[in-house]
Amino acid sequence: MENTERTYRQKTPKSAKIFARSQKLHVNGVHHNIRFFEPYPFVTRAASGKFLIDVDSNKYVDYWMGHWSLILGHAAAGVYESVREQLKQGWMYGTVNEQTMELSEKIASAVPVAEKIRYVTSGTEATMYAVRLARAVTGRKIVAKIDGGWHGYTSDLLKTVNWPFSKSESRGLTDERHIISLPYNDVEGSIEILKKARKDLAAVIIEPMLGGGGCIPARKDYLKAVQEYAKDNGAIFVLDEIVTGFRFRHGCMYATMGLDPDIVTLGKIVGGGFPIGVICAKDEIFKYADTKKFPKEGRAYIGGGTFSANPMSMTAGSRTLEILKRKKSIYSKLESLGRKTRNALTKVFDGKVVVTGTGSLFMTHFVADGTAQVQSAADAARCDTHLLQQFHFEMIAKDGIFFLPGKLGAFSDAHTDDDVKSLTASAEKFRQSL
Amino acid sequence: MENTERTYRQKTPKSAKIFARSQKLHVNGVHHNIRFFEPYPFVTRAASGKFLIDVDSNKYVDYWMGHWSLILGHAAAGVYESVREQLKQGWMYGTVNEQTMELSEKIASAVPVAEKIRYVTSGTEATMYAVRLARAVTGRKIVAKIDGGWHGYTSDLLKTVNWPFSKSESRGLTDERHIISLPYNDVEGSIEILKKARKDLAAVIIEPMLGGGGCIPARKDYLKAVQEYAKDNGAIFVLDEIVTGFRFRHGCMYATMGLDPDIVTLGKIVGGGFPIGVICAKDEIFKYADTKKFPKEGRAYIGGGTFSANPMSMTAGSRTLEILKRKKSIYSKLESLGRKTRNALTKVFDGKVVVTGTGSLFMTHFVADGTAQVQSAADAARCDTHLLQQFHFEMIAKDGIFFLPGKLGAFSDAHTDDDVKSLTASAEKFRQSL
Repeated sequence: MENTERTYRQKTPKSAKIFARSQKLHVNGVHHNIRFFEPYPFVTRAASGKFLIDVDSNKYVDYWMGHWSLILGHAAAGVYESVREQLKQGWMYGTVNEQTMELSEKIASAVPVAEKIRYVTSGTEATMYAVRLARAVTGRKIVAKIDGGWHGYTSDLLKTVNWPFSKSESRGLTDERHIISLPYNDVEGSIEILKKARKDLAAVIIEPMLGGGGCIPARKDYLKAVQEYAKDNGAIFVLDEIVTGFRFRHGCMYATMGLDPDIVTLGKIVGGGFPIGVICAKDEIFKYADTKKFPKEGRAYIGGGTFSANPMSMTAGSRTLEILKRKKSIYSKLESLGRKTRNALTKVFDGKVVVTGTGSLFMTHFVADGTAQVQSAADAARCDTHLLQQFHFEMIAKDGIFFLPGKLGAFSDAHTDDDVKSLTASAEKFRQSL
Repeated sequence: MENTERTYRQKTPKSAKIFARSQKLHVNGVHHNIRFFEPYPFVTRAASGKFLIDVDSNKYVDYWMGHWSLILGHAAAGVYESVREQLKQGWMYGTVNEQTMELSEKIASAVPVAEKIRYVTSGTEATMYAVRLARAVTGRKIVAKIDGGWHGYTSDLLKTVNWPFSKSESRGLTDERHIISLPYNDVEGSIEILKKARKDLAAVIIEPMLGGGGCIPARKDYLKAVQEYAKDNGAIFVLDEIVTGFRFRHGCMYATMGLDPDIVTLGKIVGGGFPIGVICAKDEIFKYADTKKFPKEGRAYIGGGTFSANPMSMTAGSRTLEILKRKKSIYSKLESLGRKTRNALTKVFDGKVVVTGTGSLFMTHFVADGTAQVQSAADAARCDTHLLQQFHFEMIAKDGIFFLPGKLGAFSDAHTDDDVKSLTASAEKFRQSL
């Protein structure tokens, strides 16, 4: 590792200097805690296709892809030209615009639950409103989430995100008691907890694939059981598809599982890399936000904010969805890249890892005894996360491959089979060094 | 009014059709409740300089200016070219970038409290984190805001926003009891309320000029008294300068009032019209978010989110602040336009209105008996808000002048003295019609 760090420092002297400035100006030098890694993160100068280029002109094949928001790669052709045209027409109207209709019509035709849509500025805002809406509809207060479930920073869902789940996620929260938490993929354990909250249960919110929690798909029977419990007991079933929406198919993941959510949140891909959050819900749910139907105290206050439905995010999202629809082979290509990578990494590390994920998303878990499964964030946390970070850092320093250390990787349409080969070769080298 | 509505409908047939589509897709047809007005809002096609252009090719002199985020006008020269260049280099890195340093150095040099800065995606996120940070620092729970104070949609501050302040702002909130509310510009009344919460008072958060609440500047002695009470009693003094930061001078409003806030939130102008929220705080405060100093349960969880410090917002903000600094005459020009307008409207309506605001911001309040003052959101709510909306709608329909009906107006650098004249002429016409 010392050797690796030396190599990294030698390659990134400008980044070192700029990051030192950043530390004077910014807490931990970053604007998202996870963006920091030791000894210092490189500083990006530009991004194009599958590459990030840093200020020292190092090129990295990027598997972070803007927090997985860029399924077509950086500065993707088609999206770029449309956004450049929009820029000429102004980037901030603060008023109703036609670009919004285009994006909404595309989302609504691919996501049946989106009978009504509202755009906000971030995923954090989208889940905040989803929960508020569910509480408004039901008149109840308790929201159930998953151990390791990540729905952004809203105070309404900031609990049991990181291991150990028993500890508070933050000082300064005032109402954690209305959030309860379920063991992922454990039907019996989850139903038992839900039963205790039954009468005041407003909603259950779940990612159909745990993202930050370890790139772990939910079992279909698990989601079905939780959905059934929610519906049978007057609670709202919310799926957070901010990561998974339009990631595996032209639409949401829930449709492949025969689910019927009441509310779905979207973000990332549907904004084409521009700031966005989306609340999609059935009419019977969303009507509780309608200013013409309810006075303020009877209605869920759902705003949007200054930047909601701004024409840049609308245009980038709309063009991205259009390209995804037109290039019919894209999802099978991404699925193939992901599958090959999961297989290759599993083979290379020969029993030392479990590679989770589905489609274009994957994550390497270094398991302790070679036999574990990884079916929950708790399983993932028990793996050797330090070793994963080391693996990722080795690739950054020596191979020009960038995963945000410790996080899952995402293929984009800019990646090719050659990237699978390079990644496999790096993994092979790392295994030999162990 | 019937006649005005007919004129509006005749001029905006395409908007009518598109808005009908919007109502099918979106609750109330909009993505921010305030963007709706009767019979339907026009649909913007483009924006340039001081103009909004709708899909029927009507041109409006815009006083809404992207929720007051565009102090240089729409698609401003200088900002436009820089953002266009950035677009080529990619719009979403998800990693550390140099553009962020540039913006932060500009903010830090103009805003002394910004010893540390963190970027988030919206103002709503910025105030959420400010409050969380204050609670983390003090270990207390109660946050005091102002009757009519508006800090975005975060559940942590969603109380006493709109008249009548006694009613809840929304269904679906679970923790309103930790928010208390003060009468604006009323020292005695405010201190009395603060005293009752003294031991558990984490923070007071105030806009130095009530924005959404009626464009009403705080009295200096009021802010001084509240700040003193907070500091003497171990609470954090937060100023929300999302509207006022860089609006009246190159820096914050608080500096002109001899105040010493612990935390200041910024947004709007500092993002140049791209999505942004900023938390600025002293080191001694922000250290409570430092991952190297505190374990998660002892620290304020302040993230940022997927889009934080994205290079588009950073570039647009940085270039905007640079232009504001270089064009030394800009603030005196804006102040002059605002002052002339306030004087002209006051004169035209001859005792029927109080025109509030300062610098480039102004709002016309139609008072009931001609003698009222408007020093609080309660005063503003008692004015004839319906008549104000009618005034604004008349100008939209007949004069090509756009205020979001009922809201305050903002001058930008793209406006000129001719706009003051046109606005005055429209006001004169409206007065005669009364």
